[in-house]
Amino acid sequence: MVAESTKLSRTEVERLVREVLLQRLRGQIIPPSVREQTGRAPSRPGGPPNPLVVNVSARHMHVTPSDLEALFGSGTKLTKLKDLYQQGEFASEQLVTIVGPRQRIIPNVRILGPTRDYSQIELSYTDGVYLGIDLPLRISGNHEGTPGCVVMGPKGAITLQRGVIRAERHVHMSKDDMAYYGVRDGDYMKLKIDGPCGVLFDRVKVRFHPKVVCEVHIDTDEGNACDLDSATHMELVK
Amino acid sequence: MVAESTKLSRTEVERLVREVLLQRLRGQIIPPSVREQTGRAPSRPGGPPNPLVVNVSARHMHVTPSDLEALFGSGTKLTKLKDLYQQGEFASEQLVTIVGPRQRIIPNVRILGPTRDYSQIELSYTDGVYLGIDLPLRISGNHEGTPGCVVMGPKGAITLQRGVIRAERHVHMSKDDMAYYGVRDGDYMKLKIDGPCGVLFDRVKVRFHPKVVCEVHIDTDEGNACDLDSATHMELVK
Repeated sequence: MVAESTKLSRTEVERLVREVLLQRLRGQIIPPSVREQTGRAPSRPGGPPNPLVVNVSARHMHVTPSDLEALFGSGTKLTKLKDLYQQGEFASEQLVTIVGPRQRIIPNVRILGPTRDYSQIELSYTDGVYLGIDLPLRISGNHEGTPGCVVMGPKGAITLQRGVIRAERHVHMSKDDMAYYGVRDGDYMKLKIDGPCGVLFDRVKVRFHPKVVCEVHIDTDEGNACDLDSATHMELVK
Repeated sequence: MVAESTKLSRTEVERLVREVLLQRLRGQIIPPSVREQTGRAPSRPGGPPNPLVVNVSARHMHVTPSDLEALFGSGTKLTKLKDLYQQGEFASEQLVTIVGPRQRIIPNVRILGPTRDYSQIELSYTDGVYLGIDLPLRISGNHEGTPGCVVMGPKGAITLQRGVIRAERHVHMSKDDMAYYGVRDGDYMKLKIDGPCGVLFDRVKVRFHPKVVCEVHIDTDEGNACDLDSATHMELVK
């Protein structure tokens, strides 16, 4: 058991292995330095403008400035723990506890920054079953008809009226990424993960933003179903 | 939130919806009465000998008679809560608590009967991350090099030296099932699940037994990744 012999949790080991793996995969497609070269033209004839990066989104919260203050105290700003793959996005040091209707809680849910103009909690269906929340499948920010929940912070609790979702699997793309793959904002693609738990994910939604680089987001159920850590090949297909 | 308005947990709702859905799917392929007609010849020209049934295996334990007595007291036999899909298999009333190296527990893990000549615990990777157990991917009964854990029952605790696994996704088949699909014991097939979270699962291992009827087993990570409840079509392909 890894956790016993090295004092690293499986989550930490997962993260390290994933980083190494992704670096290796990037190396097969395009030099690692591409990370700092968003939106540039293809580095070699026929190659993608950005490497294919697949990241697992663990459960997390997005928060408005006012909800943040209600949870952490007046005047609180998010403080950065580490940068995420997309420029400007970060995992904050702030953690909250989610309370569900089965009188169960999930503690240590991280807030991702920067603050937004809506609060939102993204959970896996496994989390939803545990908490007793019937999660709708949504793209970020689409909260019509979504359930809420109670959220606890160190300085207060809030009741979200809505915004608790399972995030629909998606791929962030720049204009160059979309041109390379021949897709448009809102299209659906397929993500092929080869390995001992190989899976072809259908319905990966293309989400365009001029400032992003190509990155697929799947949740922990999906990342565990395909055992992303042990993937031998990844491919995004139309 | 379903759990609040009806007093049914999402798990219970899931089970009911899945039953209704499977009955509907069965109805499209073969009459529901096939459940009692294991291994018979195809009911119509070209049709499968048994309907395609996909079930999610939640975390569970298999137990030897002696481990059962250590956990529940001398002379204890498994008592049936309900029958499972395969004849003779059942969910017992006995529940245990799994203890992992991160000083976390998972309570209420059900023992499936009848007793076996080995004890085994089948968890999802989500469970493994939570507990701190690095789960190997195995077919039932293959315990070489697998980790163990502490298991607590109402009358005692045992330390399993091995047998804690993620079960490799598989499909139970009779001789007639294998003949229909053109596969042999140990072959790998693909399972296609269409729907809002559509997934094509690669590497579904064929497991032959003369007394089973066709049934795919996936774990909760896989069932949640594809949202089996909302599947619109299922297909097993070579």
